[in-house]
Amino acid sequence: MDIQPVSGFRAAGVACGIKESGALDLALIAADGPCTAAGVFTTNRVKAAPVLYDAQVVVSGQPVRAVIANSGNANACTGELGMLNTIALAEKTARHLGCTPGEVLVLSTGVIGVQLPMGPLQSGVEAAVSALSPDGWDAAAQAILTTDTRPKFASVTSKAGYTVTGIAKGSGMIAPHMATMLAVIATDAAVEHPALQQALSAAAEVSFNRIVVDGDMSTNDTLLTLASGASGTTVDAGDPAFQQALEQVCIELARAIVRDGEGATKFVTLEIVNGPDDASTKDVARAIATSPLCKTAFYGADPNWGRIIAAAGRSGVSVDPDALDLWLIGADGPSMQLLDAGQPTDYDEPAAVSIMQADAFTFRLDLHMGASAVTVWTCDLSHEYVSINAEYRT
Amino acid sequence: MDIQPVSGFRAAGVACGIKESGALDLALIAADGPCTAAGVFTTNRVKAAPVLYDAQVVVSGQPVRAVIANSGNANACTGELGMLNTIALAEKTARHLGCTPGEVLVLSTGVIGVQLPMGPLQSGVEAAVSALSPDGWDAAAQAILTTDTRPKFASVTSKAGYTVTGIAKGSGMIAPHMATMLAVIATDAAVEHPALQQALSAAAEVSFNRIVVDGDMSTNDTLLTLASGASGTTVDAGDPAFQQALEQVCIELARAIVRDGEGATKFVTLEIVNGPDDASTKDVARAIATSPLCKTAFYGADPNWGRIIAAAGRSGVSVDPDALDLWLIGADGPSMQLLDAGQPTDYDEPAAVSIMQADAFTFRLDLHMGASAVTVWTCDLSHEYVSINAEYRT
Repeated sequence: MDIQPVSGFRAAGVACGIKESGALDLALIAADGPCTAAGVFTTNRVKAAPVLYDAQVVVSGQPVRAVIANSGNANACTGELGMLNTIALAEKTARHLGCTPGEVLVLSTGVIGVQLPMGPLQSGVEAAVSALSPDGWDAAAQAILTTDTRPKFASVTSKAGYTVTGIAKGSGMIAPHMATMLAVIATDAAVEHPALQQALSAAAEVSFNRIVVDGDMSTNDTLLTLASGASGTTVDAGDPAFQQALEQVCIELARAIVRDGEGATKFVTLEIVNGPDDASTKDVARAIATSPLCKTAFYGADPNWGRIIAAAGRSGVSVDPDALDLWLIGADGPSMQLLDAGQPTDYDEPAAVSIMQADAFTFRLDLHMGASAVTVWTCDLSHEYVSINAEYRT
Repeated sequence: MDIQPVSGFRAAGVACGIKESGALDLALIAADGPCTAAGVFTTNRVKAAPVLYDAQVVVSGQPVRAVIANSGNANACTGELGMLNTIALAEKTARHLGCTPGEVLVLSTGVIGVQLPMGPLQSGVEAAVSALSPDGWDAAAQAILTTDTRPKFASVTSKAGYTVTGIAKGSGMIAPHMATMLAVIATDAAVEHPALQQALSAAAEVSFNRIVVDGDMSTNDTLLTLASGASGTTVDAGDPAFQQALEQVCIELARAIVRDGEGATKFVTLEIVNGPDDASTKDVARAIATSPLCKTAFYGADPNWGRIIAAAGRSGVSVDPDALDLWLIGADGPSMQLLDAGQPTDYDEPAAVSIMQADAFTFRLDLHMGASAVTVWTCDLSHEYVSINAEYRT
């Protein structure tokens, strides 16, 4: 997937000095005119200042012109000064773009509990405004990264004449209901605020809310979408083609986050089928996706299905141990049943190991309880995950 | 704490060949006469055959004479044959001890989904019966280990003239509400079945239900207590001295499990104080204790309190971010406040790192919501944890 510019938007990524490495750390996405905006935010009780600020702006339904996003500092647990700094960042950006502060959304990601370095950020905003370009998406995608190893973006161009392009960051603290992740999606379709919010919430549910790296949830998770209308194509509430395009971009970005999960060496798809209802089926998927024992078995290419069944058993869902079927499915097709009605099959263990030695595979668990099906994407737990997180601040 | 024999009991540990290494893998604890028994069992929906069997025996309130326990094979997800093998093991043991099969409890721990090797076990039972001795507790404690690196035992001798001695195993799959853990506690006090069950359930709540290694929960967790009455001292329901002795043994065993947690290098105490109620306060403690990001920060001796606060924030409890106080307390006394009413203090970071470089420390989180206080013991998440669990079956 190549990153496509979106008419009516320019983007930039600059280095303002928050990151000691000198890497890009300030992204700006600016629209030529007013956009409708929608947002999905972390449900963590501890919310960073920019999350509280953006949520207020988005809920108002007022037009939005820009998103300014820094990495290297989360501006979380920073009290009143943190909120004042968020507002100051919006004001500085607005002044240079010629709009009002209320039209600027702010994103921050990085270390918690440290005040934003406002001097470097003020100069950085000026540099970012100067660097704005229709082709600046790649630099913007670079500038929001923290422990990520690569930028994440996705674009879909619709036959109806509009484009949906998104960038995201996220690698650790990834769990259902958003994570240490930021994503900004722009479209040149014309979409009213309530319709855009509805479409975005639905898309988040089947994408960013279906991924797990480590089961932690960030104070800063934010997914924003801006619609400029510059394509001239109007999208109505519930438009299936627009919903599909938005979901495709969200799913692609979400899967990219898992693929770049901290220390991840395997991309694991968990298909939980015939669950009693969506919430319970997700609980089973989440118990498996967050289990350190399952995740280390994925890492070791060990078809240790007992750990998967044990995780399902402690999920809080009344699974029937004697009803469970489990399959292991390779990325390129080979499939084998490991468990049949709760009993181990006589499966070919070396062949199972071989499937798990690839960098992607699927476990399908049939609960035989109902008709719900949920797919969750997760990764393994590796030595490198421990290294990254034991040494994060050093 | 030295292991004390208990009058009326003999114990043994032998190698019957389940473990390829030739290590001890079959333990027997036998009473000279009928005992009252109590048990606490895994709440995992997927329960191993011996768990289902023992729960039935214990609930009946009938007298018990012995516990036969194998390691190396969990007899879980083994269907009807698994249950028949459990019964056969009880029968074989009963025949050699001269009691009825219904007086023998069975424990199994190890790999899931493989049938018990009944030939080696049948000969093993004979060897174990021959090896029974009042001083056989150490061998029995050895024989129930799997990934544990050392045996776990605790003894308390009461002024009232009775002894409480326990052995336990457990190292991974350790989470509140029991874990991949087995524990057998014997006492020569005389305690009626309902009083013993009540005392044991209460003791489990403040010991084995308050430890976390990796947040997983096993299919085999079982805590059994047998009371022989051989001391001649009778203990009534609610007797505080007996409750205290039992809790002391349970807490000592539970803490030993955390200290020997898979790959653990740090013993971490989480004191959550002024919570709204015990259940919510435990939820906060559990969110922190199971967080891979908190556990890797413990490993890296990184006073990254943001991760602790973020975990509390996603615990499901309505914590007030602006009310939280957090202290780091060293094993030998030094204490420093990291967070004051949700704001970072100007603490001495090198001193904090130094506290966390020791092999034990405490985080105390004050929620300022009520009067509940819960202590949970956990460990760090290390490279070695990943190695152990990625290579468990190879």
